[in-house]
Amino acid sequence: MARSEFRIIADLFAPLARTPAALGLKDDVALIAPRKGHELVLTTDAIVAGVDFFANDPPDTIARKALRVNLSDLAAKGAEPFGYLLTLALPKTVTQSWLKAFARGLAQDQRTFRIALLGGDLSGTPGPLTVSVTAFGHVPKGKAILRRGARPGDLVFVSGTIGDSGAGLAALLAKKRSPFIARYRVPEPRTRLGPKLRGLATAALDVSDGLIADLAHIADQSQVHIAVEAARVPRGSKLSPAEAATAGDDYEIAFTAPRARRAKVLAAAKAARTPVTEIGFVMPGRGIALLDSAGKPIPLKRTGYRHF
Amino acid sequence: MARSEFRIIADLFAPLARTPAALGLKDDVALIAPRKGHELVLTTDAIVAGVDFFANDPPDTIARKALRVNLSDLAAKGAEPFGYLLTLALPKTVTQSWLKAFARGLAQDQRTFRIALLGGDLSGTPGPLTVSVTAFGHVPKGKAILRRGARPGDLVFVSGTIGDSGAGLAALLAKKRSPFIARYRVPEPRTRLGPKLRGLATAALDVSDGLIADLAHIADQSQVHIAVEAARVPRGSKLSPAEAATAGDDYEIAFTAPRARRAKVLAAAKAARTPVTEIGFVMPGRGIALLDSAGKPIPLKRTGYRHF
Repeated sequence: MARSEFRIIADLFAPLARTPAALGLKDDVALIAPRKGHELVLTTDAIVAGVDFFANDPPDTIARKALRVNLSDLAAKGAEPFGYLLTLALPKTVTQSWLKAFARGLAQDQRTFRIALLGGDLSGTPGPLTVSVTAFGHVPKGKAILRRGARPGDLVFVSGTIGDSGAGLAALLAKKRSPFIARYRVPEPRTRLGPKLRGLATAALDVSDGLIADLAHIADQSQVHIAVEAARVPRGSKLSPAEAATAGDDYEIAFTAPRARRAKVLAAAKAARTPVTEIGFVMPGRGIALLDSAGKPIPLKRTGYRHF
Repeated sequence: MARSEFRIIADLFAPLARTPAALGLKDDVALIAPRKGHELVLTTDAIVAGVDFFANDPPDTIARKALRVNLSDLAAKGAEPFGYLLTLALPKTVTQSWLKAFARGLAQDQRTFRIALLGGDLSGTPGPLTVSVTAFGHVPKGKAILRRGARPGDLVFVSGTIGDSGAGLAALLAKKRSPFIARYRVPEPRTRLGPKLRGLATAALDVSDGLIADLAHIADQSQVHIAVEAARVPRGSKLSPAEAATAGDDYEIAFTAPRARRAKVLAAAKAARTPVTEIGFVMPGRGIALLDSAGKPIPLKRTGYRHF
């Protein structure tokens, strides 16, 4: 890289930071004046080449995945995103045209999700490309949807389809073509649905490690048992329910809501133009089970992606 | 690493997150209710093994450096820190006892600076250990000290000493002992001084890339010329003024203030128990110069650290 950090920032990233909070990327900091009556929701996720994406993936899809996995977290909490910090650790092999395409991907998703770059950090690394994003959203005070609110008697819902991203990853690893590769590379955060679930959902999170593994977090934090009916798990690919529910990288919203709110939940989904499927129920107890059509737990080799 | 991400978080990091905002690290997000009448100041900096620190540095000093370089940014803006996000990319070679010592370093500095862990992300990496911190502070609305406020006639000040960290790095590279190695490994962010400069300093930043390189940012953003008198640059090591002023990693605050406020600035420094030295002046024009005792610019091979 012949060009300096400052030129890269001025040429490629400052145009992405057209918000007063970013101070034109000309200071070391960003200044956020939070919206009245709101709390700030923040989340951070890093994606690493060779772990979370392929180093030869198109640069714009890498940028968009890094953004979207974070926007997905905010959406699941009922928050509306407004900005993000970007930390790039760049290997020497990264070219100017790669960076341009990367910035183009950011610009595209900034328009889609109405967010702005607030600041960040650029450094060289002898290791793999790492893209770290911290995303910020607003939620009315006390209205964030956490993991800990599920109650026995609640129903379990999930948006979209489960396992498609996993099918895309399997195709990439097998060097085959598949319509699901796009789903793996560029997830679809449910930013329209999330805010409409405020006041309806009792607990929610986004499915990143796998439907079963993530619902286990809700069961754990809410101190309840969650049962998922395998046949009801919405799938676009040919993965079995057990495969789909443990694949990960879905970036759908899984949530619980009282049975009495079922109609309201489905109306909210319709208003958000987002498919939502009822997949299970909450009971007293602990832990999670994926049930076959006879109501018996299906033994699982693993519940989802393990980071170590 | 035999233990999973979740155990590491529960055992080592959850005890660092004893603030309601962190939700016990049991959700995907943190929830910040900003202080009334204040803005949030945020900054993010990553440190990479082999670039910003040595992989065999003591783990607690790596943790503390990652925190402190960010706290230094907040202090220079006049902000009071309250929390941080931590993103760790861990190579497989990292052991449980290394992580324990790392967490101990965080705990120590959390007490020193009265901050809490708000959340973060843990992932494996085939590359070097990378520690990324995003730090959050409060500043009364409109009172953040930016880079763009320096005016002709202002004086230039710097806290502490310059070049000591560079001398420490040189000793480490030469495999020699030096009292300055500690300074390189664990910088001293000027968190007491920063908030006291609100309403006094017209522009400020922390010295990370080198005194001259960083003051050039103030000159650039404020559209002024800055002259630094070499003989006045406060030094603890045997580096020459030109070496010290281009060494970097100092994490002192460099700032400008009107001549009429000189006495107030020195009183604020005393109240903060932080040495502050007058080192130069601001003039109409552009750019920066390091002046010898005859008032002539000293030619510099470089102005500071280049990231690429």
